[in-house]
This record gives sequence, C-alpha cells and structure tokens, in this order.
Amino acid sequence: MDRTLAERTKYFDNAATTFPKPEVVYKAMDEFYRNYGVNAGRSSYKLARKATDLIDETRELLAEMVSFNKTERIIFTPSATIAMNQIISGLEWDEDKTVYITPFEHNAIIRPLRYIEKKYNIKIKTMPFNSLTFELDIDRLKKDFEKDSPNYLFMSHVSNVTGFILPIDEIITCADKYNSVTVLDCAQSMGLIPISLQKLKVDYLVFAGHKTLYGPFGIAGYIDNSKIGLKEFIIGGTGSDSLNYFMPESYPSKYEAASQNICAIAGLNASLKWIKEIGIDNIRDKELKLTKQLVGGLEDIYGVAMYMPKDIIKHVGIVSCNLDDYKPEDLGMILDEDYGIAVRTGYHCAADIHSFLGTKHRGGTVRLSLGYFNEESDVDYLIENLKQL
Amino acid sequence: MDRTLAERTKYFDNAATTFPKPEVVYKAMDEFYRNYGVNAGRSSYKLARKATDLIDETRELLAEMVSFNKTERIIFTPSATIAMNQIISGLEWDEDKTVYITPFEHNAIIRPLRYIEKKYNIKIKTMPFNSLTFELDIDRLKKDFEKDSPNYLFMSHVSNVTGFILPIDEIITCADKYNSVTVLDCAQSMGLIPISLQKLKVDYLVFAGHKTLYGPFGIAGYIDNSKIGLKEFIIGGTGSDSLNYFMPESYPSKYEAASQNICAIAGLNASLKWIKEIGIDNIRDKELKLTKQLVGGLEDIYGVAMYMPKDIIKHVGIVSCNLDDYKPEDLGMILDEDYGIAVRTGYHCAADIHSFLGTKHRGGTVRLSLGYFNEESDVDYLIENLKQL
Repeated sequence: MDRTLAERTKYFDNAATTFPKPEVVYKAMDEFYRNYGVNAGRSSYKLARKATDLIDETRELLAEMVSFNKTERIIFTPSATIAMNQIISGLEWDEDKTVYITPFEHNAIIRPLRYIEKKYNIKIKTMPFNSLTFELDIDRLKKDFEKDSPNYLFMSHVSNVTGFILPIDEIITCADKYNSVTVLDCAQSMGLIPISLQKLKVDYLVFAGHKTLYGPFGIAGYIDNSKIGLKEFIIGGTGSDSLNYFMPESYPSKYEAASQNICAIAGLNASLKWIKEIGIDNIRDKELKLTKQLVGGLEDIYGVAMYMPKDIIKHVGIVSCNLDDYKPEDLGMILDEDYGIAVRTGYHCAADIHSFLGTKHRGGTVRLSLGYFNEESDVDYLIENLKQL
Repeated sequence: MDRTLAERTKYFDNAATTFPKPEVVYKAMDEFYRNYGVNAGRSSYKLARKATDLIDETRELLAEMVSFNKTERIIFTPSATIAMNQIISGLEWDEDKTVYITPFEHNAIIRPLRYIEKKYNIKIKTMPFNSLTFELDIDRLKKDFEKDSPNYLFMSHVSNVTGFILPIDEIITCADKYNSVTVLDCAQSMGLIPISLQKLKVDYLVFAGHKTLYGPFGIAGYIDNSKIGLKEFIIGGTGSDSLNYFMPESYPSKYEAASQNICAIAGLNASLKWIKEIGIDNIRDKELKLTKQLVGGLEDIYGVAMYMPKDIIKHVGIVSCNLDDYKPEDLGMILDEDYGIAVRTGYHCAADIHSFLGTKHRGGTVRLSLGYFNEESDVDYLIENLKQL
C-alpha cells in the first residue's frame, strides 16, 4: 500500500505545531464531536451539559498542570495570539508606561506592543541578554529597572526560534519591588517545562493548545493570576445575561464571547490527560535526549552555525541553524524536495531575534524542532542527509 | 447495543449549531488533521503547502457561494463574533456617526456597538419594524434616514430568535443614496438563503462555519466587499513579513494573525462541497417543509404563542414560541428530561428582540430550530409530546 505524504515525511516543525498528535487526541475530537457536538450552555439540555462538563474538566486539567486553583480564571481563546491581544488590549496604557520585553519575543507580543507604542507613546525596553552566551546581564537589568521602572513585563518562557529557556525566575525576582505586571508566553513550554504559579509570580500565563500541549488548533488561552482585571476585548454573546448591553463582569464569561469550540477542547482535554499519563518529565527527557543527539550531529557538520546557549539544559528541542553557502529558504526546499524532511525556514514570526542573532542579512535561520513523536532514527536521517550536502 | 445520548436525543437546537454534521465533515476533519495537520505557510514544505491549498480552495468555495470573485478578501476568523468585532473595531468612529440596527440583532452586534456608543457617543437607531407582522415601515425608515443619515447599517439576514428573513434588499435600496456601509450578519443564512454580492450592495458579509454552513466550530469569517479598508484588530504573527513591527497591508494577511485552524477549515471545506452537491435550494425546500409541519402542529396546540411573521416564506426553520403557564426554561427542562427533546430557552443572546416581541417578562422564548437532518418523524414526536403537556 502507498504510504501517505505524512508517513513519508520526517517532521521537524514541531515548534510551529506538534505533529502528529497523540492518537487519543484525534479519537477524542472525532468521537466527542460526533456525539456531543452541540453548543455548550449552562442549565440547558443534557447534550449541552456534557459539552459544558468537558470544558470545565479541561480547565481543571490546565489548572492542575500549573498548580493553580481558580479554574474560572482560566480563559479560553481560539489562539494564543488572541489571548495575547486580549491581555495587551485589556491593560491600562498611557505615555508613562514602560514595558520590558526580551530579544526572544514572538510577533504575537511584539506587534501588539508596537501598535500600543504608536498609539500611546509608551516606552518599550529590551532586557539585556548576551547574544553569544544568551546570558542575562542581571546587573544591567537592575539598573535599567531603577532608571525606568517596569510597569509591564512581557516574556517568552521558551524562545520559538532558538529553543532557549529564559531565566524567568531571575527576571521576576528583579522586578518584584516594582509591583509590575508579568505576562508570560508559554506557547512553547507548557506541558514540557514544569511551571508552578504557587512559586512564580506570573500575572498572566498564555498557553497554546496546539504546540507543547499536543492538542489541536483552535484552542488556547491564558490563566489570569492577577488582581488588576482586564478590560474586555472580544465582545458578543456569552449565553448568559443576554439582556445586558454589556459583557457580564463574571469570570470566565467576560472574556469568552462566542460559542466554545468544543471539538478543539475535546482534543485538548485528551492531550492533557495524555501528558499527565506520560509525565511532563518523561516528555522533557525524551526531547532532551533527541536534542543532544541533534546538536551533537550538527556540530560534526562543517559549516553549520547554531544559535543557542552552550548549556543544553537551558534549551528545548528547537534548534536554529544555518549552513554555509545556503540561504535558509533554499536549504529548507532541498531538505523537503530531495529528502522529505520538513523544517521551517526564515524569520519565524519573531522580529527582534534576528538582529540579536545576526541572522537578518541571511534571511533568518533553518529551524529544526523536535517533538515527542520524533525518534532517534529521524535525527540520524536528518544528520546523514545534511552531511551529504 | 446501547444507543448513544445523541441518538436518543431529538435535536431542535440547530440555530445554536447545526448537529449532526454531514458525515463527510467529520471524516474530512479527522482525515485531514491526521494527514496534513501542520501549520500552513507559503513556500514551505509539501505538507504545509497541502494545508495552504485547502485554505485557498475553501475561500474559493465560499466566494462561489455568494458570487464574489476576490478570494483574498475572504477573511477567516475563529468565530463570527470575532469577525464582527474585527469589522466594528476596524471602522472609523466619532460622535457624528449614526448607526442603524434592527430589533433582531444578536449580541455579537449589539454589545460591540453599545461599547462603541459608550466610548464615542455615537447614535444607534433601530429600524422601524411592526412587532406583530414583522413588516418594515419603509416610509418611516426613509424619514429616519433623511433626519439622521446612516453611516453604518448593521443587520442580520435571518433572525436567530424568530427565524425571520429580513427585507435586506429594501433596506439597502433605501440607504443607497447615503453612501453608507452595510454589514450583513449571515450566521443564520449563508448556505440556506441564496445571496449574491453581484446583486446586493453589501460591504461586509459575516458568516459562521458551524451554523447554516454545516461546518465545525472554530471557523468563520467575513467577506470584504468594501472599498474603505478596516484597521487591523487581532495583531500578531502572519507567517510573512516577519521583520515588520506592524501587520502587513496585504489581504488576507492583515486580518489573519495566528495559525490557521486547518482542522476546522477541512471540515468547512467538506461541508461547502456537501451543500453544493445537495443544492442550497433543496436544503431550503426540505427545511421549509419541516417548518410548515412544525408551525402547523404548534397552531393546533392550545395556549401556544408563536413569534413569527404570517408569511412562512419569509421564514427559516427557527420557531420561537411560548406555552401558557410554562416558563421557557421549565418547558425546556421538561422536554429534555421527559422526552429527550433538545431545545434552547431564554433570551438567545439577543438583547433587543424581547422588548420587541414582548417576551422579556416571560424569560424569553422556547426556540425550536430545525436543520437538514431533522425528519418529519422528529417534528411529529415533538408536537405529540407538546400536546400531552
């Protein structure tokens, strides 16, 4: 029998979306949607209540994963980008506000903030990281904070381009005395790198269902661990308080206009249970082993430049590299066309990181990103073929 | 073998979401997601190009349905609510703006507009409809337009509470000389009531994948047939022009930040082909026949009040009613618990219609809404059991 294109492809684009998903995810989406594919709504008929129960349980699974206990403050959005837009748009802004970001941010943070900058003339400052070692210059950061005290911190937990795990504890500790609001983008980390909201003072934690959580597209959100309260962003029907011209003030309704995508939530529900069963540490261990193999293999290839910290423990399975004489885009095409290897090339929706890495003039990087379903043999195959070039 | 809850339920909540979906929709979602469940992106590897091709084809199918030819101006959003927020937030506002709505609007229109009213002190006027006959008072509308000329018209094509098909042609003709912008909410009509953008001057046509288009949750959007251009709303990565701090100006990228939900798009793609195969007119005919049966049956029941125009041809298969002595909520619960009949009760996310219908004090209505997969026997069963009460 002919193998499908997916079967013939060695997939190294897990940072864009993890693929494949665990079998239970596909199954849960299909079965739940066939059996309970209705519009969830409180105190409605049985099928709708089943859908609502699924949503509630999924919030609980997410809460448990980050040691959080206010499930009603887990807000679902259709994408992490919308979650970030909700947060940024929901905060208070004026020209006295100073925001700190890192060089590693995704355009889901950079672009909304630059839009705000244009509108309110805020100050956006970049935290000082060493572009070779990726080390944070903590002394300089402290001085920066003293000079321009931070109102808001926006940072990725894990860089989507370099796979670097940011020293978020240190940054949050430095910011502690300024009473600033911390927004943490966990699109590339939740489900892979343990995080506890009991231990870490994060105000808003953004997650994406379809990346390290191994769920499907269409479900993401944020955890509201803040006291400040956001203005609403997406405004519309909530299935409750319908005669009210304005959004209800209660959580999560105020931030969840429109029908819930219970098909996607069924997938996320299944993937969260799958992660729990396997264990975050085991997923991380497997990926780290593969990452070591990948990095070791790349080091042996003449003319390969890798953009990552020395210490691999500060790193997930996302490796950005370039190969002498090849434009990233051309290398990506060769890998795809000649070897059936799927990688992502270019700037990876991150505007600042390429100035930091010095990869702007090169057209970005070739990004090789691993997931739980990659195997040693895939990495061998990739390395072997890169050696042939 | 035990029948599932869905099999045991007679489903009359198709206005909330059509259920079940055509078999091809479930199948397409599952198969496409298993085989091509990657992040679509231009000039990327083969799997991603397959995902991109699917998205392009789906835009073409939508364009064809409404006789539109600029496929790049079909903007996908995760929900019709977000589409409406994008449009409303993207328009120009100041206190000189006058907006006309109808009494039939959904909170996805009302709430964002009331938010804008609060912020900009705009004028929101309601078009004059007769609350018994549902007839539009065209003379009064003309006078209203003369007194306060319309900048923006927002209207549902079909009311989600009463099933009434609005006389959109007449309204648009009346507004013609004012150079106003028309936003048409086709959440309850597209795929069921034919509409041609060649014939009708609509600037923004909003659609919901999961209702009359028989697709899944998670995919919706709007068709931009306007010359004015909207400000961006959801801001983030677009997979293109990544070094740019701002959204690219090109369509559809400017309005489509974040990863595409290709699983949902695969479902919509299949449902659009299914509609094409069956034919919009045949879907409409079947539903109209069932609607006549339902309305006829309800007329025979003592104490039933129906909220609809006399002429059933101005109507889709959504019937709002009340039964003497029963609160809508209680009737819904009895139908569910005792007879396995799923209906929606209450205010149905529409703040204005209940003042218009006089159903505010009654706790709204019981809404019975039909879909292509309802059968005569379902309607018989519903009517029989309502008679027992």
